[in-house]
Amino acid sequence: MRRWTFAKGHGTENDFVLLVDAGGERPLTAEQVRWICDRRAGIGADGVLRAVPGGQMPQWRGDPDVWFMDYRNGDGSIAEMCGNGVRVFVRHLLDSGLVVGPEVLVGTRAGVRETEVQPDGQVRVAMGPARVVVNGEVVVRTADERAFDAVAVDVGNPHAVSFCADPRVIDLSRPPTWHPEQAFPAGVNAEFVSRRGPRHLAMRVFERGVGETRSCGTGTVAAAAAWHARESSESGTEEPVHYRVDVPGGTVEVQLGATSYLTGPAVIVAHGELILPDALDAQ
Amino acid sequence: MRRWTFAKGHGTENDFVLLVDAGGERPLTAEQVRWICDRRAGIGADGVLRAVPGGQMPQWRGDPDVWFMDYRNGDGSIAEMCGNGVRVFVRHLLDSGLVVGPEVLVGTRAGVRETEVQPDGQVRVAMGPARVVVNGEVVVRTADERAFDAVAVDVGNPHAVSFCADPRVIDLSRPPTWHPEQAFPAGVNAEFVSRRGPRHLAMRVFERGVGETRSCGTGTVAAAAAWHARESSESGTEEPVHYRVDVPGGTVEVQLGATSYLTGPAVIVAHGELILPDALDAQ
Repeated sequence: MRRWTFAKGHGTENDFVLLVDAGGERPLTAEQVRWICDRRAGIGADGVLRAVPGGQMPQWRGDPDVWFMDYRNGDGSIAEMCGNGVRVFVRHLLDSGLVVGPEVLVGTRAGVRETEVQPDGQVRVAMGPARVVVNGEVVVRTADERAFDAVAVDVGNPHAVSFCADPRVIDLSRPPTWHPEQAFPAGVNAEFVSRRGPRHLAMRVFERGVGETRSCGTGTVAAAAAWHARESSESGTEEPVHYRVDVPGGTVEVQLGATSYLTGPAVIVAHGELILPDALDAQ
Repeated sequence: MRRWTFAKGHGTENDFVLLVDAGGERPLTAEQVRWICDRRAGIGADGVLRAVPGGQMPQWRGDPDVWFMDYRNGDGSIAEMCGNGVRVFVRHLLDSGLVVGPEVLVGTRAGVRETEVQPDGQVRVAMGPARVVVNGEVVVRTADERAFDAVAVDVGNPHAVSFCADPRVIDLSRPPTWHPEQAFPAGVNAEFVSRRGPRHLAMRVFERGVGETRSCGTGTVAAAAAWHARESSESGTEEPVHYRVDVPGGTVEVQLGATSYLTGPAVIVAHGELILPDALDAQ
């Protein structure tokens, strides 16, 4: 029976179990991740964020003293990046005295991410560019047979953003489909977006391989970029533009520009010791 | 921001957050319970088990030194008893050094419960009598339009036990209905049971007001009692009979007799401090 120090936290209700592995000697098996994320037999979370010094990660070529976010999905698979996860990761590093803010660099499988803790405790993350790929040539169809002209946006991962009068009424109990199929050969995250006010959007999201979630960081950036590209009458300005995006799990702010920034809450709700079952400890 | 010591545990994957309140000075509001049980914004659990000395509970008339299990459902409502919860409650009292086993009395809103910790760590709970009320006059119908002659069993709460070839194929995504309606004016927990071997049953359960769950302690007792009353050729014996009941979350043992006993696992998976949001602390 091994005991691991852990924390649990969430960013707009995308929730994570956080583990610090300063010696890089505790790589996680897929079974251990699945147990930790099991919402009844374990702690429960969408994923695990293991903090390891970059120098302990064989694939890391950057500063060895940067904390690397070893992000694992709840099913044990490896993921590259997660905009909500990075915020919670930084909040936990700060709370644990492992970094000093307000500026914190985070290593991820998608490269280094610059973050900045705001005076109100929210965390801002540089998400890289949001690139509108196709505008108007993709049709997304939801389970209730509604059809939308979607905007394809690349934020490091693929998104199809559809505009609608009210995202609340759309059936996301089953995966949306799209046409032409080859627009997203590796699948797509589908956002459904409406306007709430000037530069203020509401969004629901169906994440590929997961289902509807309470929030998706890259999805909010894609939604703002798609809206701005298609609906905004403004153009030619060099100024960064700010959007507020409401998701079921809360509200984030997106800044569009050469690099996009995502700012949102990061909350630690508990910390303590988890008690790994013997069967998983021998691994 | 207040911090509370907590543990999380489960009995056959019916999971709980445990709080010890030795001074009886921390009654929980419904909002606090809902936050604790929120699987994304809080810790996440089916319910909260608050341990309070009986003498601190105004309604308790028994031994003031018995630990009272103040059991709250995830929606904040008050519940009387929970067979899986009592096991996890006793395990936590033992681990915390608050009681000495193997025999532990637990106060509940349904009266005192006798428990006994087994050499293998499982916990046995006296559940009171299981009374077969109606045999064959109730029809239960599932969402996939299957109809069953159900056995009505009272284990302190109402159950309708249906026998089937394979519980795995039954659609429990929506609540079953029953006829006549007046058989269960306050609703009913519906079990679907098949035989796996001699005195060995498999069961799925739809709990009233909740939906399908991984396990239901009183439901396993009801299932064994109903099976024994209808299907067993044995009768007239005074000996207690033992059934093994497999549920999706694990396996328990039921002993039928003048009083029924439920024996099953109780696992603590984590303990630590939870950080109550300021908005809930002022309550």
